[in-house]
Amino acid sequence: MLEGKVLVAQGGGPTAVINESLVGAVIESRKFASVQRVYGAHHGIRGIIDEEFLDLTQETAHNLELVASTPCSALGSTRDKPDAAYCREIFNVLQAHEISTFFYIGGNDSSDTLRIVAEEARQRDYDLRCIHIPKTIDNDLMVTDHTPGYPSAARFVACAFAGINLDNLALPGVYVGVVMGRHAGFMTAAAALGRKYYDDGPHLIYLPERPFAMENFISQVKETYERLGRCVVAISEGIQDASGQPIAQALSKNVEKDAHGNVQLSGSGALADLLTAAIKESTDISRVRGDTFGYLQRSFLGVVSDIDSREAREVGEKAVQYANWGEEDGSVTIHRTGFYSVEYRLTPLQEIAGKTKVMEDAFISSTGNDVTDEFIMYLRPLLGSGMPDAYHLRPNRVPKILNK
Amino acid sequence: MLEGKVLVAQGGGPTAVINESLVGAVIESRKFASVQRVYGAHHGIRGIIDEEFLDLTQETAHNLELVASTPCSALGSTRDKPDAAYCREIFNVLQAHEISTFFYIGGNDSSDTLRIVAEEARQRDYDLRCIHIPKTIDNDLMVTDHTPGYPSAARFVACAFAGINLDNLALPGVYVGVVMGRHAGFMTAAAALGRKYYDDGPHLIYLPERPFAMENFISQVKETYERLGRCVVAISEGIQDASGQPIAQALSKNVEKDAHGNVQLSGSGALADLLTAAIKESTDISRVRGDTFGYLQRSFLGVVSDIDSREAREVGEKAVQYANWGEEDGSVTIHRTGFYSVEYRLTPLQEIAGKTKVMEDAFISSTGNDVTDEFIMYLRPLLGSGMPDAYHLRPNRVPKILNK
Repeated sequence: MLEGKVLVAQGGGPTAVINESLVGAVIESRKFASVQRVYGAHHGIRGIIDEEFLDLTQETAHNLELVASTPCSALGSTRDKPDAAYCREIFNVLQAHEISTFFYIGGNDSSDTLRIVAEEARQRDYDLRCIHIPKTIDNDLMVTDHTPGYPSAARFVACAFAGINLDNLALPGVYVGVVMGRHAGFMTAAAALGRKYYDDGPHLIYLPERPFAMENFISQVKETYERLGRCVVAISEGIQDASGQPIAQALSKNVEKDAHGNVQLSGSGALADLLTAAIKESTDISRVRGDTFGYLQRSFLGVVSDIDSREAREVGEKAVQYANWGEEDGSVTIHRTGFYSVEYRLTPLQEIAGKTKVMEDAFISSTGNDVTDEFIMYLRPLLGSGMPDAYHLRPNRVPKILNK
Repeated sequence: MLEGKVLVAQGGGPTAVINESLVGAVIESRKFASVQRVYGAHHGIRGIIDEEFLDLTQETAHNLELVASTPCSALGSTRDKPDAAYCREIFNVLQAHEISTFFYIGGNDSSDTLRIVAEEARQRDYDLRCIHIPKTIDNDLMVTDHTPGYPSAARFVACAFAGINLDNLALPGVYVGVVMGRHAGFMTAAAALGRKYYDDGPHLIYLPERPFAMENFISQVKETYERLGRCVVAISEGIQDASGQPIAQALSKNVEKDAHGNVQLSGSGALADLLTAAIKESTDISRVRGDTFGYLQRSFLGVVSDIDSREAREVGEKAVQYANWGEEDGSVTIHRTGFYSVEYRLTPLQEIAGKTKVMEDAFISSTGNDVTDEFIMYLRPLLGSGMPDAYHLRPNRVPKILNK
C-alpha cells in the first residue's frame, strides 16, 4: 500500500449492505503498517471538500461489525457530481491530509467521479491509488456479474410480491406495484422470484428495456383478469414509450432533476395512480389498487441476503488487497464461477465509469412482459438462504347441497 | 361442542398471522369426537352463500402447519356486508350442511356480521354457536388489549421507519411516509419504535385521533428541518381536518367506497404527493420525498412477530375451547397480565361488533404530533424477538487543516 493515509467514502443511494463494504475496507486497511490512518469522509465527496473526516482507526472493531450489519451509508452520502473546480478542491484537501489511497463505494456515477479524480491526480503528479467498490440496488454496472446491494433489494421485492400475490388471492382484483429502476429492469424483474404456484403473480412484468404502450398494458391486464379473476403487475418506475420518453416524466409538470441530470422518479405515487386510473377507465374491474414501493426497498431494516452481505464485505476487503499488492486503479468486479460461487477481479475504471448495463435479451421473455427461466436461475442464488415460503390449502372441495 | 359440523371463515383485510388462527381453530376442532367435519368457507361469508366449502378434516396437519406460517387469508376473504336477505341465504346453507359451530376470523365489521348471524340463528331457533376470532392490523377492536395481526404489521412499520431514518441520515431531506389506519393511529404510531438515537426519525407523527391542519404541519416540518437538517414524518392515511373530513377524501374526485361505506384510502399515492407538494410550495427545502406504504405492510412475506404468531394461534385454539366447554357466543379477547404475558377471555359479541377503538389520550403526546413512552412500553413487547437494530459510527472527528 502507498505510504500515507487511506480515505473511504460512500456515494449515491444507500443499500442494505453498503456498510459491509465500508467495514471490509476499513478493517483490512488497518492491518497494513504503511497505512498511517484510515479516514472516512462524511457525506461522500462533499465531505472531502468540507474536510469532514472521521478517524476510523479510532473506532473499535466491535462497533465496526455492528455498523457493518446496519443498512444505509453510515458515513453519509451525496449526489454531488464534481466538475473541474470541484476536483481541484478535492485535491487540495487530499494533499493537505496526505491521503494516498482513496476507496469510493458507489454506483456508475460514483465510479465516474473516481475516474475524474484519478485523472486529476495523474495530471497533478500526485501519487494516489483510486479503487472503486461497487454498490447499487439497480444492478446496472458493466463487467460485474451483479452489484452488492442488488441481491438484498431484490429479496425485498420478491418477498413483497410474494405477499402481495397472497393478498390479491384473498381479495381478488388488479394490483400494480411500481418498483425502482431508472434504466435497468433488474429490480422489477426480481418480482418474479415471489412466484411459486402456477397461477401466482406477478402475472405481468414491465421493464424499461422494452417500450411501454398503454393500450397493450390495458389489454394484457384485462386478459389476465378474465382468465384468473385477478392480476398482479410489477412495473418499473423507469418504463418508457417507444420514443424513449419516461412515462413518469410525462406526468409531472415540475420535473425535478438531480445533479446528474436524472429525473426524480421515486418519492411520488404518480405513476401507480396514472396506471390504476387508466385501468379503471378502460375496464369494468372494480377493485384496482396501486402501490409505489419507494424508499422501503433499499433501506428496510432486517431484509438482507446473506450472500449479499458476504460479497459486499469481500469487495471492500479485495479493494484494499488490490491497492496494496497491485499498482493499478480500478473497480472491483464480481465474476460467477459456479452455482453458486464467485471470484473477484480489478477492472479498469473506464470500463465501468458512467456506463449503464441493462437486462440482456436472454433475461426477458419474447412477449416482453415477463422474465425468462434464465433470469430466475441468475437471481435465485443471490437472494441468499432462509427465503420465506408460501403454502396453500389443498382443494378438498365439499359437494354442494343447495346450489346443484 | 355442539354435535355437528364446524365452519371456519376469514373476513376483511389479510394479516401476516391470520392463518395461525385458522389452523389453531381447525386443529383444535379436529380433536373433538362431537365434530363430524371441519369446513372452511372460501372467501368468507360469500363462500357460504355460494356453498364453496373446503373439507379441512381432509387436510394434513403437516400442510396446515405450513399454511399457518403463510401470510394472508388462506381461505380467501370478502368485503361483503350481509343484510337480512343475505343472512337468510347463509342460514339455508348452514342448515343444509348441518353446521353447528361457526368461527369467523375478522375485525369489527366481521364481528358485526357474526352478531347478525347469531341473532338470526336465535330467531330461527337454530342451534348455532358463533365465536369471533379477532384479527386486524388496525388494532381497533374494543375490550382486547390488542388484535392479532397488529404486532406483525407494526413490526413492518417500525423496521421500515428505522431504515428510512438511516436513508434520510445518509441523504438528508424531508421524507413523508403514509401508513395504513382509517380511524385509529396504532399502525402509524408504530413508526416511533424505529427510533433508537436521540435525533432519529420519525420526528413527527400525525394520527387520525388529532385534527390535522396543513399550516401546522408545514411549520412543524420546517422547524424540524431547520433544527436537524432533515425531517422524517410518519402520517396516517386517515388524518382528518377539524371537521372530521378525511384529508385524503378531499383529494379524490371519484371517491370509491366499499360495502361498509368506507372510503378507499390505500392503493393510491395521492395523500403523500399532496403533502410533499405542499412542503415544496411553502419552503425552499430541495429534497422532499413521499411514500405510501400501501399493501406491503399487511402481507410482506417474512416480517412476523413471534409473539403475534403465538397469540394468533392461541385465539384460534381458545375459540374452540370456548365453543366446546362454554355455552355462550362471543369474541376471544386478549388481556395483558405481565410484561409480557396475556390471558384470554370470551367477551359478548355486542361489546365488539361494529365498534372502533382509537388510541387513548395517554398514548399521544400533548403536542399531538408524537407518541408517549407509555405507548412505546405498550407496543415494544408485541414486536417480538429478534428485532433488527441500527448502529452508528462514533464521531472521532479529524481536525481540519485547510478550512480553519
